[in-house]
Amino acid sequence: MTSNDNPTAGVIIIGNEILSGKTQDTNLQFIGNRLAELGVHLQRAVVIPDIEATIVSTVNDYRARYDYVFTTGGIGPTHDDITSACVAKAFNVALLEDPEAVRRLQRNYKRGELSEARLKMAQVPTGAILIDNPISQAPGFRMDNVFVLAGIPAVARAMFDHVALQIEGGPPIVAASVDGYLAESAIASQLSDIDERFPNVDIGCYPFFRNRRFGANVVARGTDTKAVNQVIDEVFAVMVELGGEPERRD
Amino acid sequence: MTSNDNPTAGVIIIGNEILSGKTQDTNLQFIGNRLAELGVHLQRAVVIPDIEATIVSTVNDYRARYDYVFTTGGIGPTHDDITSACVAKAFNVALLEDPEAVRRLQRNYKRGELSEARLKMAQVPTGAILIDNPISQAPGFRMDNVFVLAGIPAVARAMFDHVALQIEGGPPIVAASVDGYLAESAIASQLSDIDERFPNVDIGCYPFFRNRRFGANVVARGTDTKAVNQVIDEVFAVMVELGGEPERRD
Repeated sequence: MTSNDNPTAGVIIIGNEILSGKTQDTNLQFIGNRLAELGVHLQRAVVIPDIEATIVSTVNDYRARYDYVFTTGGIGPTHDDITSACVAKAFNVALLEDPEAVRRLQRNYKRGELSEARLKMAQVPTGAILIDNPISQAPGFRMDNVFVLAGIPAVARAMFDHVALQIEGGPPIVAASVDGYLAESAIASQLSDIDERFPNVDIGCYPFFRNRRFGANVVARGTDTKAVNQVIDEVFAVMVELGGEPERRD
Repeated sequence: MTSNDNPTAGVIIIGNEILSGKTQDTNLQFIGNRLAELGVHLQRAVVIPDIEATIVSTVNDYRARYDYVFTTGGIGPTHDDITSACVAKAFNVALLEDPEAVRRLQRNYKRGELSEARLKMAQVPTGAILIDNPISQAPGFRMDNVFVLAGIPAVARAMFDHVALQIEGGPPIVAASVDGYLAESAIASQLSDIDERFPNVDIGCYPFFRNRRFGANVVARGTDTKAVNQVIDEVFAVMVELGGEPERRD
């Protein structure tokens, strides 16, 4: 669990290609990791299709519920890239061609190559603040607490790194972890007991199969580093007692 | 786009480990692919933490909105596995120890090894129908239109295959695809035109970088195979004209 000092976040992954199974999303894992480092508690993520009404209502729902909202996908030049227009609609403002975004695109394209389709990537909602894209120039943008990032993982990451400084996090959410070669069920009752005694630490237990052996990976997370480490020390001791040959993983 | 004959689905991915970035989800891509083959239109997926109130409300929201709901995760033996209890609560029925589930677990464990923690995996909501788990025996279950699957990908897949026969799909959603070595923006206006002329085909355009060259992958999806192929034929012709050296990918 995080403390009440940790701001919250929601992620909106936009794209038919994720729901159809064509594309494996990897942005959520990256954003989840980075938000934890920043001390922001990611509470929910949703994958939605390229449908205007769905995007507009989801953006409005999430921006009211979470301190920070991150969207990925749908800011390219083609007909299925409708995120910018939808965010403008959600905020009830006009979409406009941003002069600075046009300049950045001009740097990337030769004279005469900046077609109407490419100029679409310079359109942002009125009042938006651009987010740098060091890879292909076409910027993302921020509207209030909503950060609109590209879908391409390398670009999404570069954009996130650019905005990380704008995010006021809480105490960092730290994790510690231990692996043991025993069944999850063998340590379930002890884990349950530890979990009750450490209400401010989130304890997860995940089975694995490695080197032809079954095991359990126990992860403790929270903002209280001392308590997180105490939990893992206790789980380590339980695993030793049960012959699980534990190894710390942090 | 799918026809009105296609039933709808929603996916609920349950687990703190996905939101924290510890674990990369791969179940959504698999389920998305299989639902398309079955002619079921996956409309939304959500990732939520192991919090009772959140799981209960999300299950109730999704089962009212979609023809089929699939959950993954949270049905193991430890304290953080609360999905079964939450689904019982969502349906307002008691959680009970299913005798057939106990028999299946007995087959997997030696006499005396079937601890209280392991027996937890035999608890399902009253009225649930078991879903086979050929890998580790502990079953999933179905309650009305909600299919509760394991989080471990190999087990989730085996369980999905078991229930696939219970899903009444519509016309299969087929996809065809073409790659060309040209910028997305170079074909944007032509794609937009094709998109308008084929309202029953969903057309997506995705940039790629391969063999040191940039390109665009255009995907057409729908239940009308002839229209899907016509779209890709037209895109192919546009790419030839622009020197994009297109290759079909289906």
